[in-house]
Amino acid sequence: MLKVGILGGGQLGRMLLQAAVNYPVETHVLENDPECPAAQLCHHFTLGDIRNFDDVYAFGRSLDRLTIEIEDVNIEALKKLASEGIVVVPDPRVLSIIKNKILQKKYYREHHIPTAAFLITQSREEIRNHISFLPAVHKIGEGGYDGKGVQIINNATEIDKGFDAPSVLEKRVLIKKELAVMVAINEKGETAVYPIVEMCFDPSLNLLDFQLCPAQIEEPIALRAAEIALQVVKGLQTPGLFAVEMFLDQNNQLFVNETAPRVHNSGHHSIEAIASSQFDMLWRILLSIPLGSTRLLSPSVMINLVGTGDAGPTLYKGLDEVAATPGLYIHQYGKKLSKPGRKMGHMTLLGPDAKVLQQQVSSLKSKIAVSGESER
Amino acid sequence: MLKVGILGGGQLGRMLLQAAVNYPVETHVLENDPECPAAQLCHHFTLGDIRNFDDVYAFGRSLDRLTIEIEDVNIEALKKLASEGIVVVPDPRVLSIIKNKILQKKYYREHHIPTAAFLITQSREEIRNHISFLPAVHKIGEGGYDGKGVQIINNATEIDKGFDAPSVLEKRVLIKKELAVMVAINEKGETAVYPIVEMCFDPSLNLLDFQLCPAQIEEPIALRAAEIALQVVKGLQTPGLFAVEMFLDQNNQLFVNETAPRVHNSGHHSIEAIASSQFDMLWRILLSIPLGSTRLLSPSVMINLVGTGDAGPTLYKGLDEVAATPGLYIHQYGKKLSKPGRKMGHMTLLGPDAKVLQQQVSSLKSKIAVSGESER
Repeated sequence: MLKVGILGGGQLGRMLLQAAVNYPVETHVLENDPECPAAQLCHHFTLGDIRNFDDVYAFGRSLDRLTIEIEDVNIEALKKLASEGIVVVPDPRVLSIIKNKILQKKYYREHHIPTAAFLITQSREEIRNHISFLPAVHKIGEGGYDGKGVQIINNATEIDKGFDAPSVLEKRVLIKKELAVMVAINEKGETAVYPIVEMCFDPSLNLLDFQLCPAQIEEPIALRAAEIALQVVKGLQTPGLFAVEMFLDQNNQLFVNETAPRVHNSGHHSIEAIASSQFDMLWRILLSIPLGSTRLLSPSVMINLVGTGDAGPTLYKGLDEVAATPGLYIHQYGKKLSKPGRKMGHMTLLGPDAKVLQQQVSSLKSKIAVSGESER
Repeated sequence: MLKVGILGGGQLGRMLLQAAVNYPVETHVLENDPECPAAQLCHHFTLGDIRNFDDVYAFGRSLDRLTIEIEDVNIEALKKLASEGIVVVPDPRVLSIIKNKILQKKYYREHHIPTAAFLITQSREEIRNHISFLPAVHKIGEGGYDGKGVQIINNATEIDKGFDAPSVLEKRVLIKKELAVMVAINEKGETAVYPIVEMCFDPSLNLLDFQLCPAQIEEPIALRAAEIALQVVKGLQTPGLFAVEMFLDQNNQLFVNETAPRVHNSGHHSIEAIASSQFDMLWRILLSIPLGSTRLLSPSVMINLVGTGDAGPTLYKGLDEVAATPGLYIHQYGKKLSKPGRKMGHMTLLGPDAKVLQQQVSSLKSKIAVSGESER
């Protein structure tokens, strides 16, 4: 049996291990929390820091293959492991590009991939040289995550919101829809593109509010989105599972926003709604099994269950009320502590008509809450 | 989080733990093999003998709820645990009935459940008193499993094949089809019946050859089968997940053959083909979550992957060739050793038409083999 390691033990690692149950594979997880969602589902759990060179190197050197469930890992250690023959998916070279928003944007430009116009700024003050470029979005080069490290700067009076560090200043796109396209590519260069999904965000937390599949867009746009996503992924020249996030603007132009080089929140619906889920597909890539089918089994909406209220021991409210809803699949991540904004689970609703599903979201959401139990 | 223990760590336990990933639950497994299929997927693995009173009692006493993945467990320990307030699903009283084929047959008779006519024999010689009852099937009272402990006795010359132990002598039914009906029942007495499945056995090993859902039977027979299965399960007066196996004879009469008080091989297709799989459903029962939907998502065939050839380190052949077949889901149980007749995995094929699926079975089976790798 191949020994495969995962850097990170959050919910993505947890669902990846759930899919691993169908394959003969020895699984290893590195994470700094022995109670993380993935800890008890692997053959070997290693306590350590995925950002620390020594921890990652020591974890990986006895394994056959390695992957990640988060980009914020020690890339130098992965590069050394790759040079010593450990198969790292995706290639750590690609992580270096994607982890830094400046390099990522340059990659799109060099590969003629449509993306919003941008400038590089080294300091906050430098934004003042580009007043005519506003309104724009300032994105910090390194360290942003889940909407942190992103500021909208509409005009000169808002420059103080910018980052005093190397950043991207990106022309604001008039967004009509946000789309995501998952693409799988294996060591032979064979690819599989998933049906396009449409995302809707909560403006306060910038966390995914709900996600619809298939996206409600015209077919030529869907085909163009798939084409662009393939172009992004092929240019990276590494096996892996990628989520390419895009904007569709008011003129029906597509712009790549960013790419995640791993299983991704936008692909959770694939567990039930697609023949080969994103998690199943990554195992096929890791274990050199032919790619699976990305056929849509049913339209779906996916809703994140995000912590609200106080931090504290996790309390799910209302799940029982909806648990018997036909076509509803609830995933709880087993996190012991709920915090405001923390992803605590998700639910996917299947049904014959995407438009009807969309109308059921607010009713479902009104019945359910996750919060920290009061300590009183 | 509730602490739930599973007695047995085979493939059924493995798939049960795979489904547990969606729920907040602390999982415990008792099994005598640290490399069993379920060992690495639970929070706490305990090495011990599920048939030993002390091992089962020690394992269970600190848990909230207990279930089984095999009937051959120490029932006395479960009864003691139940008397001390541990919730055991199903009630160990029911295990006593089902584990003994004599008591099981008597249960059917007492509850007016259609089952083949039978006599009880205490010894092999006693069969001679019932020559006119032949042809019949002799089933040993205790210890039969996967077709062992069952002998067909056509006439007086074959009496030597019978068991010299308390057994059931059952009138042979002229079987047209073998059916299985899964039924879930929770602590409130609410029930959910799964679509009927049809089974086809390999006559040499008496292992399930393939299984088809929905069964190709007329609707009145399906309704009658569901009614009988509900009658069996309600009469047992315990929460649980049950598979009621039946014969349909040449006159379209149904006879209950036997009942499994647990997740069962005949329900593997439910992972992909039914909204709430048998594994998901058992967690709902264990964790007091409303029962799920048993809606059929797609017709399916399920094929067991059984070890052939020599015993030895597991070698799957041909899986790669079929791995990309749309609608095919392959489950490998991660058993390190293959033995002839051992269940090593299964695959489920979904498609719009059950008859067409049936025609694809032999082609799929011809491409795939599991065997022990030669040590040379």
